[in-house]
Amino acid sequence: MEKKKGEHTLREIETQQEIWSDVISKVENRKEDLQSLFDGIERVVFTGCGSNYYMSLGAAMHFQQITGIQACGIPASELLLYPDVVLGMGERQVVVSLCRSGETTEVVNAMHIAGSSYGLKSLYIGCSKQSTVSNMCTLSLVPPDVQEKSVVTTRSHTAMFLAVQVMCGLLGMNEKFPGDTYLRELRKLPPIGRKVISGFHETVERIPLNEYSHFVFLGSGPFYGIACESMLKMKEMALMPSDAFHSLEFRHGPKSILERAVLVTLFLSDTGSDLECDLIQEVKELGGSVVTVCEKAQEHVWRSSNFVFETQGSVNEWARSVLYLPFTQMLALRKALTRDIDVDAPRNLTYYVRLER
Amino acid sequence: MEKKKGEHTLREIETQQEIWSDVISKVENRKEDLQSLFDGIERVVFTGCGSNYYMSLGAAMHFQQITGIQACGIPASELLLYPDVVLGMGERQVVVSLCRSGETTEVVNAMHIAGSSYGLKSLYIGCSKQSTVSNMCTLSLVPPDVQEKSVVTTRSHTAMFLAVQVMCGLLGMNEKFPGDTYLRELRKLPPIGRKVISGFHETVERIPLNEYSHFVFLGSGPFYGIACESMLKMKEMALMPSDAFHSLEFRHGPKSILERAVLVTLFLSDTGSDLECDLIQEVKELGGSVVTVCEKAQEHVWRSSNFVFETQGSVNEWARSVLYLPFTQMLALRKALTRDIDVDAPRNLTYYVRLER
Repeated sequence: MEKKKGEHTLREIETQQEIWSDVISKVENRKEDLQSLFDGIERVVFTGCGSNYYMSLGAAMHFQQITGIQACGIPASELLLYPDVVLGMGERQVVVSLCRSGETTEVVNAMHIAGSSYGLKSLYIGCSKQSTVSNMCTLSLVPPDVQEKSVVTTRSHTAMFLAVQVMCGLLGMNEKFPGDTYLRELRKLPPIGRKVISGFHETVERIPLNEYSHFVFLGSGPFYGIACESMLKMKEMALMPSDAFHSLEFRHGPKSILERAVLVTLFLSDTGSDLECDLIQEVKELGGSVVTVCEKAQEHVWRSSNFVFETQGSVNEWARSVLYLPFTQMLALRKALTRDIDVDAPRNLTYYVRLER
Repeated sequence: MEKKKGEHTLREIETQQEIWSDVISKVENRKEDLQSLFDGIERVVFTGCGSNYYMSLGAAMHFQQITGIQACGIPASELLLYPDVVLGMGERQVVVSLCRSGETTEVVNAMHIAGSSYGLKSLYIGCSKQSTVSNMCTLSLVPPDVQEKSVVTTRSHTAMFLAVQVMCGLLGMNEKFPGDTYLRELRKLPPIGRKVISGFHETVERIPLNEYSHFVFLGSGPFYGIACESMLKMKEMALMPSDAFHSLEFRHGPKSILERAVLVTLFLSDTGSDLECDLIQEVKELGGSVVTVCEKAQEHVWRSSNFVFETQGSVNEWARSVLYLPFTQMLALRKALTRDIDVDAPRNLTYYVRLER
């Protein structure tokens, strides 16, 4: 039987929530290992390439919020080229490598430098327990059953990010938002995820995707990382111009590009909700269209947005990224299908990047 | 006499190097004030909006490299919405606000929080001594004679960034690259800048800009900030699709967009030169065109690039950003002119953003 275009990717998007419960319990079982790894640590460097670099930005933000420990996200290539700038902050650091295959050359080389030149402890989070990077690291967290056939990452991304979030909860020392409270929020995700996945087709199909030729993704705080990841998905899958910005940054220059063919997807936060709703209004006044992805839209959000996707179910915004992201994965896949592109064989890309030097 | 399209912006681009000597000596005169402000400081947060957010990314990278003190760059809106995540790292922090007008609402509000809620010391770097932000900060650095008529920032950007660099040199404690050595590199810039400005027209005019409809800007280490700024300039001035990535990140997904109409501008570093030259080759093999901006191109760079712009004159890569940036400012202006756009009156934009809440 002939393979349908994008069928692997579609299946991986549609099944991603099935493994979330296992991810949560598997990482929770590593509590002692993780607490011991991060004991006395003052700074955490998350690193990766491509999607995993963008995950590292979200991971650092969540880690700082939940644990109170300073964190940053940086591409593996930057760590490799400028190790003193990235790692020259003393011994009380852990480097966390985010890497699906565990074989990406730049990540392998970056982790080698972190370990052998700086003597730093390290953690691997990815999908391949028997991999070069996993074997180099002090500790590994490998979500169960997350392997993907597709070159573009979808299911592995939410599973790995959820693993990061559970780790944050296990290490959480924030009095205002204790780790245990955070873990309770995360445990709500699997059933809500099932509803999200069964509900997003209807909204995506209502959007006349062939009318849009430029896609902008906006997110503040917890959601900037997934805005970047969505931008990348739109390029990789649909080969379309796409941008990502911190929501309110969009006013400071980028909004100059707004016109009828621009579709802006806003991942609505709770903290910035009022200011972000003003922005939705402004985008529409300047001729763009807006899809608002949110938990539950108030009346003025319905009124000012062209399209709304609600994840429903009630979880704290710091637990919500993996509920928001599948919608834009699906948006990119559908846009690719309108252009007759097979996202299972994306142009110019390979499963991971191996370099000769 | 009728005003020519973009004439203010053109004049500001072409005259920017004239004030660099004054910027350097004016900031050097503030050595004691600056050393006192940063005495005992463990972390510096650079913040701003739009161009100045991208400047904050470059500023943080340079500050870490030259002073050895930890630094980060963050949009003012993120500081405003999530102050605990950004500033919750104790008292030994300074917040540096980068803001041309000193009146941008989000910067004003962010600096209010930094001062009144967190009790942090602060520094204003911008073009308006008599401004709300300047008056709120512990100390101000205002480069001389840098006022712009244009909405889009060009001259003010390099002047403000040079002020940041001189500050880094005055505070520099890095044994491998002492502050005094760095200041000597910076003092070489004004005469080299004059040659850059008088030479860039020839290269820009050789590029058939009407054949390109998508512009990518790549930079590692010292040059990621100006890659982002160039991306923004291309949107603001020419309203064209544009992207910025850390150079080697381009392989991890974004290269899927490559085709004949994509022009990639690479700001060549010294540290990553070999790996970046491999990338130039790959971009061309995948159908894109490459402009390499570098200090002095070796033969294989000339061979593999479609266009080369050399800044010549010999300065360390950490002093070189302000020599590289005018080229892409000019590229964006010329692209706008081919589309008959008046960059002096950019679509949808104002001199600064004032919000009602």
